[in-house]
Amino acid sequence: MKQYKIAILAGDGIGPEITAEAVKVLKVIEERNDVSFELLPASFGACAYFESGSAFPHQTKAICDEADAILKGPIGLNHEDSKRIPIDEQPERGALLPLRRRYNTYANFRPVSLPKSLAHFSPLKPEVIGEGIDLIIVRELVGGLYFGEKEMGVNDAGLRYVRETLEYDEAQIYQIMQQAFKLADKRRKLLHNIHKSNVLKSSVLWNEVMEEVAKEYPDVQVVNMLVDAAATALCLKPTQFDVMVMENMFGDILSDQGGGILGSLGLMPSACIGPDKAYYEPSHGSAPDIAGKNIANPYSMIGSVAMMLENSFDMAAEAKNVWAAMQGVFADGYSTADLSKPGSGVTMISTVEFGDKVVEKL
Amino acid sequence: MKQYKIAILAGDGIGPEITAEAVKVLKVIEERNDVSFELLPASFGACAYFESGSAFPHQTKAICDEADAILKGPIGLNHEDSKRIPIDEQPERGALLPLRRRYNTYANFRPVSLPKSLAHFSPLKPEVIGEGIDLIIVRELVGGLYFGEKEMGVNDAGLRYVRETLEYDEAQIYQIMQQAFKLADKRRKLLHNIHKSNVLKSSVLWNEVMEEVAKEYPDVQVVNMLVDAAATALCLKPTQFDVMVMENMFGDILSDQGGGILGSLGLMPSACIGPDKAYYEPSHGSAPDIAGKNIANPYSMIGSVAMMLENSFDMAAEAKNVWAAMQGVFADGYSTADLSKPGSGVTMISTVEFGDKVVEKL
Ligand SMILES: CC(C)[C@H](C(=O)O)[C@@H](O)C(=O)O
Ligand SMILES: CC(C)[C@H](C(=O)O)[C@@H](O)C(=O)O
Repeated sequence: MKQYKIAILAGDGIGPEITAEAVKVLKVIEERNDVSFELLPASFGACAYFESGSAFPHQTKAICDEADAILKGPIGLNHEDSKRIPIDEQPERGALLPLRRRYNTYANFRPVSLPKSLAHFSPLKPEVIGEGIDLIIVRELVGGLYFGEKEMGVNDAGLRYVRETLEYDEAQIYQIMQQAFKLADKRRKLLHNIHKSNVLKSSVLWNEVMEEVAKEYPDVQVVNMLVDAAATALCLKPTQFDVMVMENMFGDILSDQGGGILGSLGLMPSACIGPDKAYYEPSHGSAPDIAGKNIANPYSMIGSVAMMLENSFDMAAEAKNVWAAMQGVFADGYSTADLSKPGSGVTMISTVEFGDKVVEKL
Repeated sequence: MKQYKIAILAGDGIGPEITAEAVKVLKVIEERNDVSFELLPASFGACAYFESGSAFPHQTKAICDEADAILKGPIGLNHEDSKRIPIDEQPERGALLPLRRRYNTYANFRPVSLPKSLAHFSPLKPEVIGEGIDLIIVRELVGGLYFGEKEMGVNDAGLRYVRETLEYDEAQIYQIMQQAFKLADKRRKLLHNIHKSNVLKSSVLWNEVMEEVAKEYPDVQVVNMLVDAAATALCLKPTQFDVMVMENMFGDILSDQGGGILGSLGLMPSACIGPDKAYYEPSHGSAPDIAGKNIANPYSMIGSVAMMLENSFDMAAEAKNVWAAMQGVFADGYSTADLSKPGSGVTMISTVEFGDKVVEKL
């Protein structure tokens, strides 16, 4: 029997609620396969800071170090509440970025996927969605502005100023390009390379390395697109995309736009993969406004489990089953209050009920 | 009689075609008002580079220097063709950014406006558009990554690397905030401050200065929103926004997303305003694929004229007339091939015919 340890970082806001549903799914998978999951809960995010003074405490690091994979819920507080924590200890800077850096999870995969049957969630017209949206954003996750040096101070003119740096070297670009090309090669052999080379020199190097890697994948067609044009195109014709690759900050913005065209960030799971370890998380925030109400949809968290099954445990078939189960619940006409608009004809169920129905389908 | 000099930089691709229509509108305004416009055409962009070896030649600079306002068409070549020009002479780096820097046009106003009657252009469902979209993006235009130092080379490990800097000082932030708050105060008194303070220190300073300026405008309600959340919200509920303020790169991406939700960047004029001079331009590129076909809609260029009339020549009433004339042409069921989808029930007319119809309405 295969044995895996999974660190469970439930996070803040709606994190614990949706994580609980994802854990139910893990249990089902465990029962019916020759596999055992040892779940190792650990404190992470604003909750950890208030408990222990650190958003990413030592014990949590130790647990993550020994885990085979990490399941991480959303973290963070709302704008006003986050002022209660010193800037560098805020959960994004104090926990999330350090987690990404610690395991060098440079490749972030964010599927933006909307089968035709879920088209009603989307703000886009049915004719724009056509047969469905099925693209995946490959976001570089440990470079660029996010991790560059930052300096704040007062300049010679007596003015407060701030300076941050955006850095990439060819090795960083090479490794994310490899991931993107490999994925494109397995899928529709179409890769949109998103850049801003008409302004950013980082994009000039980015494109150079892209062209070098492209030679190793002669079957993959590359379409170069400026990031601003991509933001237009994602609204106008999302079905033109299959795999999109981009640097960290662009990926942050465009993947959330992706959540927008789906109808909710709640439909956005993700995988963050490094050389030795991977962690899995929803692409959305902790939604403090709806926390504790049992109305948040666990799709992104259960979808993150599906991505874990496929990537970390080589259980692609079960991953497919999990996706199908979730889509089946929607297809049966159920949804949660955060997703469904009143009058849209769906039956509203709670977070827990949604998880239960997924488990039933499985 | 008031006399104004207007530099006319027709630009590349569809630039000359749509500029010609904008000039027709200027002539009408001139005829029926106590004003004279001296039009000073000048070469700018890739065309200028191929003519003279410089994308922003001395003569063009001289003409712009003496002009009271500048009307600028889109510039640039497609991805492959731009490789025919050395990186630093490419029209974006060689002409557009120098133009912005020369006149310190720090405040870029980009209306994202879709009256209910034009809702059919949008990829968004009618219920998302409701009574219409009417927001304006205020983009900082001469700071941030666009103008920071850039360095490319080979590092100690023998790897090619690139480093660029994102810088702001409080004075830069102060001046753009003043513009944004002033505008919000004149409109619905609602300002969305777009930032990424959970990662970027530049956003931390940005928000500090914003809060200081906010005290001068007690009637303006400020909503703070992360840039990624804003990208989601622009798709899901664009009608929640009135004035949005953001730094340069965020503004580039989100304003093009704005074009996406309208249905076309062709509906996006803009004003770029500095302390002593302003220039006006469409927010879109030069669309080389449809250049010379007489099918590009001149809305963004004529709209830029409307913004010029209001901002540079204090002719707000005539500006309103120009907007109304353009919307009237659409309301009469006409459009151009770049905008209208086959079968959408509109009568297709050419670029020139669209301009003529606007002139008739005026
Ligand atoms: C919480 C935040 C730091 C994070 C990011 O910007 O990467 C989030 O928005 C995401 O996209 O995962
Ligand atoms: C052409 C390009 C340099 C420019 C920019 O990025 O500012 C354009 O995209 C815009 O938005 O005006």
